[in-house]
Amino acid sequence: MIKIGILGYGNLGKGVETVIKQYQDMQLVGIFTRRDPEIIRKETTNSVYHVDDILDFKEEIDVLVLCGGSYEDIFIQGYTYIKHFNTVDSFDNHKIIPDYFLQMYETAIENNKVSIVSVGWDPGLFSAMRILFDTILPNSTQYSFWGTGVSQGHSNAIRDINGVVDAIQYTVPNKKAIKKIRKGKTPTLDVYDKHKRICYVAIDRDYDKAAIEKEIKSIPDYFDGYNTIVNFVSLKKLRKKHSKLSHGGFVLNNGITGHNNKQLLEFNIKLDSNPEFTASILLAYARANYKSQQYKNYGAFTVLQIPLSYISSDNIKELVEKI
Amino acid sequence: MIKIGILGYGNLGKGVETVIKQYQDMQLVGIFTRRDPEIIRKETTNSVYHVDDILDFKEEIDVLVLCGGSYEDIFIQGYTYIKHFNTVDSFDNHKIIPDYFLQMYETAIENNKVSIVSVGWDPGLFSAMRILFDTILPNSTQYSFWGTGVSQGHSNAIRDINGVVDAIQYTVPNKKAIKKIRKGKTPTLDVYDKHKRICYVAIDRDYDKAAIEKEIKSIPDYFDGYNTIVNFVSLKKLRKKHSKLSHGGFVLNNGITGHNNKQLLEFNIKLDSNPEFTASILLAYARANYKSQQYKNYGAFTVLQIPLSYISSDNIKELVEKI
Repeated sequence: MIKIGILGYGNLGKGVETVIKQYQDMQLVGIFTRRDPEIIRKETTNSVYHVDDILDFKEEIDVLVLCGGSYEDIFIQGYTYIKHFNTVDSFDNHKIIPDYFLQMYETAIENNKVSIVSVGWDPGLFSAMRILFDTILPNSTQYSFWGTGVSQGHSNAIRDINGVVDAIQYTVPNKKAIKKIRKGKTPTLDVYDKHKRICYVAIDRDYDKAAIEKEIKSIPDYFDGYNTIVNFVSLKKLRKKHSKLSHGGFVLNNGITGHNNKQLLEFNIKLDSNPEFTASILLAYARANYKSQQYKNYGAFTVLQIPLSYISSDNIKELVEKI
Repeated sequence: MIKIGILGYGNLGKGVETVIKQYQDMQLVGIFTRRDPEIIRKETTNSVYHVDDILDFKEEIDVLVLCGGSYEDIFIQGYTYIKHFNTVDSFDNHKIIPDYFLQMYETAIENNKVSIVSVGWDPGLFSAMRILFDTILPNSTQYSFWGTGVSQGHSNAIRDINGVVDAIQYTVPNKKAIKKIRKGKTPTLDVYDKHKRICYVAIDRDYDKAAIEKEIKSIPDYFDGYNTIVNFVSLKKLRKKHSKLSHGGFVLNNGITGHNNKQLLEFNIKLDSNPEFTASILLAYARANYKSQQYKNYGAFTVLQIPLSYISSDNIKELVEKI
C-alpha cells in the first residue's frame, strides 16, 4: 500500500480524499491543515492534523499531495516539504514553473526525495499531448481550447466589482473553429475567436446592470478584448444552476506528411468535476513517485519525464501483454 | 544527426523515407532490401543496398527501422538484427508480442543494444492512451474504435475469392455509438455493433454477384458475424476512388469519480496516409532509441516505458519551459 498524505483541504484536497477510494493500492494517512483541525473533523471521517505536526509523520507518508489553494501556497509548501517528504503538486503558474522546477530538483536531490511538479490536466496531461503531437507531426499546426468550464480567476475578477453579490464565468471554446480543424483546416485564430467568456452575475438591485456589464467587459487581461457575454441572474438561480466545477478542453494538431497527406490528432476531455479529475491525475503520479523512490531515482520531474509504466499499477510483464 | 537505416521498401519503408525529411536531426544512411537493389534504385534517389551487405553499415547506422511487410518478416528481422543494430519496429501480432519482447530484451542486453518494439498507432499510441486513461480513471469503461480505414488483411481475404479481380475493405466505426459515449453513456457493444465492414469489389463479369457477396460475408473471423456491406464497382473506379491508405480511430474512457461525476477522456486520429503516420511515430521513437543509447540504457522497451522527454528533440530545460 502506498501511504498518502493530503496537505490542504480545499476543493482539490477534498477531491483527493474522494478519489483515493478508487485506487486499491493506496491508503490515506491523514489530512493536514493550517486551520483548526476540529473544524475540518466535522466534515470528514478521516484523520485530520494541524500542519505544525506534519514532521511527526515523516516515516508514515510515502507521498505527500500538495493541495494548496493559491500559487503562493504550493510555492512555499513545495520548498518547505520537499526536504522531508516525497511530493506531487499541480503548480500551474506557467511563468514561474522553470524556477520552481529547478529549486525543487536541487532540494530533492540533496535530500534523496522525489518531487513530481505541475501534475494536473493543464499543465500536465495537455502538456504531454502537446509535446507528443508536435513530436510525431513536426509539420503541423497546434490548437489548445479550454472549456466549457468555470474559471475561478475570472469569476473572482467579477466578484470584486462593486454591486456584484456573486458571479460565475464560463470559458466556452469556439465549436465552429474546432469543427473546421477536425475537417483538416488550419484557421488563424486570435484570442477573440478562440473562446467566449459567458458570465452569470447576481447583483444588488440598487446597482445599474448596464454600468456593471460595461465594467466587466473592460477588465484588462481578463475580459477586455475577449468575446464576453454577461447574463444577470438571481442569486438563487446562480447557486442552483451554476455550482458544479465542470470543465473540459481540446488539443488538436493538423499536420501534413509526404505529398499533402493530412494527419489529424485530437485529445479532448469533458469533466463534471475539475477538482476530482485533477486529484485523479495527482494520485496516478503519486504512484509514479513511489516507484521512482524504489528505483532510488531522486530529483524533480514533470509528466514529460515519467513513463506510463510508472503511473500504472501493472508490472512490465502485464503491460506488455496489454499493449 | 541521428543516422537512420530502413530495412524493407514496402509501404512503410517508403513512408519512413518520405517523412524523415521533416525531422531535422535525422539523416537517411540507406535503404536495405531483399530484392535486387537495381529495381529499387529506379524508384528513389536515396542509396539502396542489398540486405546481405547490411553488416558493413554497423558503425554507420544509429537506429535501424524494421519495415518488413509481414508478421514473419519483422519477427525474423528483429531477432537477426538486434545483435548488430539498435532497432525500432511496428510488430503488431498481439498474441506473440510478449514472447517477441522477451527475446528482443535478452538479445539486446547481451549485445548492448536498444530495441523499441511494437511502435505504431495500434499497438503503440493507442496502447499508451488506453493505459493512461485506465490509470487515471480506474472506475471507467473503455472503448476502442478503428476506422474509417482500409484493412489490408480483410481486403486480401476478399481478393482470394475466385472471380474477384481486386477489392478494398473499409472498417467503419459506429458513429452513433461514439456519439452516445461522448454524451456520457456506457453502452454494451458487441462486435456487430462496433464496426461496419464496407467492401468495394471488382469482379470478372463471368461470375455471379450474389454468390460472391454470400461467399465474402461467410469468411470466418474476417466477415462472418460482422455487419458487412458489399458494393460491386468497376476495376477502373476501384483504382481511382479507393487507392488512398487512409485510416483512423478512437479511444474513449467514460469514468465516474466521487458522487456520480462523469469524466470523459477521448483520443482520436484521422489519417490520409496510414503508412506515413506509422513512419512518423517510428522516427520519433528512433530518437528515443538514440537517447537511450547515450544513457547506456540497453534492452527492449515498448512505448509504455519511454518518457516523452526521450522522443522530443527538446532538452529538459526546453521541455519544462513548454509545460
